[in-house]
Amino acid sequence: MTDALSIARDLIRCPSVTPADAGALGVLEKALDAAGFTCHRVTFSESGTADVDNLYARIGSEGPHITFAGHTDVVPPGDESAWSVGAFSGEVKDGFLHGRGAVDMKGGIACSVAAVLEHLAANDGKPRTDGTGSISFLITGDEEDVSINGTIKLLKWAAERGEKFDHCVLGEPSNVEALGDTIKVGRRGSQSGTLYVDGVQGHVAYPHRASNPVPDISRLIVAISDEPLDHGSAQFQASNLEFTSVDVGNKASNVIPGEARAKFNIRYNDNHTQASLRELVETRLAKACGNRIRARIVWDPSNSNVFVTKPGPFTDLAVSAIEEVTGRKPELSTSGGTSDARFISSYCPVIEFGLVGQTMHQVDERVPVVDLEKLTKVYRGILARYFG
Amino acid sequence: MTDALSIARDLIRCPSVTPADAGALGVLEKALDAAGFTCHRVTFSESGTADVDNLYARIGSEGPHITFAGHTDVVPPGDESAWSVGAFSGEVKDGFLHGRGAVDMKGGIACSVAAVLEHLAANDGKPRTDGTGSISFLITGDEEDVSINGTIKLLKWAAERGEKFDHCVLGEPSNVEALGDTIKVGRRGSQSGTLYVDGVQGHVAYPHRASNPVPDISRLIVAISDEPLDHGSAQFQASNLEFTSVDVGNKASNVIPGEARAKFNIRYNDNHTQASLRELVETRLAKACGNRIRARIVWDPSNSNVFVTKPGPFTDLAVSAIEEVTGRKPELSTSGGTSDARFISSYCPVIEFGLVGQTMHQVDERVPVVDLEKLTKVYRGILARYFG
Ligand SMILES: [Zn+2]
Ligand SMILES: [Zn+2]
Repeated sequence: MTDALSIARDLIRCPSVTPADAGALGVLEKALDAAGFTCHRVTFSESGTADVDNLYARIGSEGPHITFAGHTDVVPPGDESAWSVGAFSGEVKDGFLHGRGAVDMKGGIACSVAAVLEHLAANDGKPRTDGTGSISFLITGDEEDVSINGTIKLLKWAAERGEKFDHCVLGEPSNVEALGDTIKVGRRGSQSGTLYVDGVQGHVAYPHRASNPVPDISRLIVAISDEPLDHGSAQFQASNLEFTSVDVGNKASNVIPGEARAKFNIRYNDNHTQASLRELVETRLAKACGNRIRARIVWDPSNSNVFVTKPGPFTDLAVSAIEEVTGRKPELSTSGGTSDARFISSYCPVIEFGLVGQTMHQVDERVPVVDLEKLTKVYRGILARYFG
Repeated sequence: MTDALSIARDLIRCPSVTPADAGALGVLEKALDAAGFTCHRVTFSESGTADVDNLYARIGSEGPHITFAGHTDVVPPGDESAWSVGAFSGEVKDGFLHGRGAVDMKGGIACSVAAVLEHLAANDGKPRTDGTGSISFLITGDEEDVSINGTIKLLKWAAERGEKFDHCVLGEPSNVEALGDTIKVGRRGSQSGTLYVDGVQGHVAYPHRASNPVPDISRLIVAISDEPLDHGSAQFQASNLEFTSVDVGNKASNVIPGEARAKFNIRYNDNHTQASLRELVETRLAKACGNRIRARIVWDPSNSNVFVTKPGPFTDLAVSAIEEVTGRKPELSTSGGTSDARFISSYCPVIEFGLVGQTMHQVDERVPVVDLEKLTKVYRGILARYFG
């Protein structure tokens, strides 16, 4: 059976709690292989993390090339006795398919596979009847935890093989309340750092012989926090910097400490690159320090750069397919947490559209069976327009 | 032998590293008993600290009553191999008496005992030949560490026995560079506290759902630090508040914390009482918070209130005695760290005058023998004027 519900159920019955695969990729590989896809199982390793299996499957050898991305790993079920049905039973009850991964995102993958198989069946087994066009699947088992041996390496592996992607649909649960309400077209970047302020240690009774870094770092925190980084952009809300901790760790009440440090995180929009953002903050710091306060920033490494897929033909065809099936005009959103789209965006434009996220990561994660049917239709509509 | 050098040497040879007595109080008790003093050995205990021996000795039963206070415990010698002579040898070398406690303050006690014995010998064995006047010694073995079972309890014990002190001389090493340069007549008070600021924890990606206490506590630290508490008084430098630590302890770079706290210490002068000082800081805090920031201060317990002995007949006679012996006009100082004078000041006016503090708490602590002779003469001069 290659309908979305059957595939989703088969996937849920594999207890692929990250980083375990538990047979999940095999379910997809079998279905895609039968439909004529060339399949590659690729295992990536890195010391300190578990080896993780990935699947790359492609049909067609010419452009345009659309790829469906996703992950088959899931977060742990938590207290399984709190679930109405087994977390890995894949049971349908009252019109809902239940189980860990139902919306995040075995359900979404199942819909994309079902839609692609239907599309191929309607086009002589090819993306286009004229033989052009390619469809592929980029599926990882490493998204929910460290995301080290997954999409980021699979993309690099594919690029080294000469694979070129024109567009990507990532089937993460993008909708907030109802299927069709939201396409995610980007994410703010995330950059953390630590601010260090040097003082001169001394005794509280002799403050003139010391230099207290506590009021100094306080001044810098206020100065850096107070001025907005920007006022938003066409597709993004304003960038924001939050100090998440300030620490000295001095337990001696009669000692003026010699150093203070503060940690901060910035969520930034497409007014900035990582480099320009760092420069902006350093410039503000230098201004707030004057030539009195000695301070420096140590930036954390970050692989969460800002990205956005601008409105255009690709987003238009997705919106059109969604409207036709759901009757809703989706918002093109850039809000919310991180996903593998941040990696894909370095290779091609990517949009995220999948199921409704409400029950993700919760007890009794579940999806209306009708949403699986509708999402399959949306993906078919996207394929029809893309290759039309 | 009851000259200052002999008594000092005998005391140094008792390795009375706090809280050990090692026979030191016995040295004094023997000499004072022989001179007609009524001696009391009083042991105080408190759970969690060592029992400590104290000595109270008095001669005479009428006023005026002058008491000499001091401590026989010493700080540890540190690396004894670094000493030129044994830390507890009491050796005289090149005109200096060497050993732990030589200036802080076995030397000072020895001078006071020697001066009192000389004074009594010159007055028919009495403070005054007419039979009035009293001289006493308040000596503890618990000053250098926790100061819990020492002077504070000995004063209370004496008060309960009906002892009334009119004036006190505490023989701590008060002089900075040369004998006669400084009388300590008071100390600033010390008050510590912790400032807590409540926020609302949340995710950095959704700051509007959280309230970050880090910029808020930073604003409060700046506001409270920036405005001086006062501009000094006749006998004191300006009061000063130092934030000694600020801490959140949040290790999650994507989480806005729910609370921040900062520790501070205030050294305050006689423009304030402990109560008025706390009120002043609370008022400033409330103003800086407005009705937006939720903050509170938890005050540490403190037994270091501000105190001062105002210039007058008692300080005048000390200054006169010092000038006569040393040729220096001493400064009436209120600077420096804490001592048992803070406890004594609740019972009677107290001045601190002893040796030169330069080598105290160091390797090769030592005192010029000539300083022992001169300090003994100063104390004799004080007694002569006091009972004259
Ligand atoms: Zn997901
Ligand atoms: Zn001392």
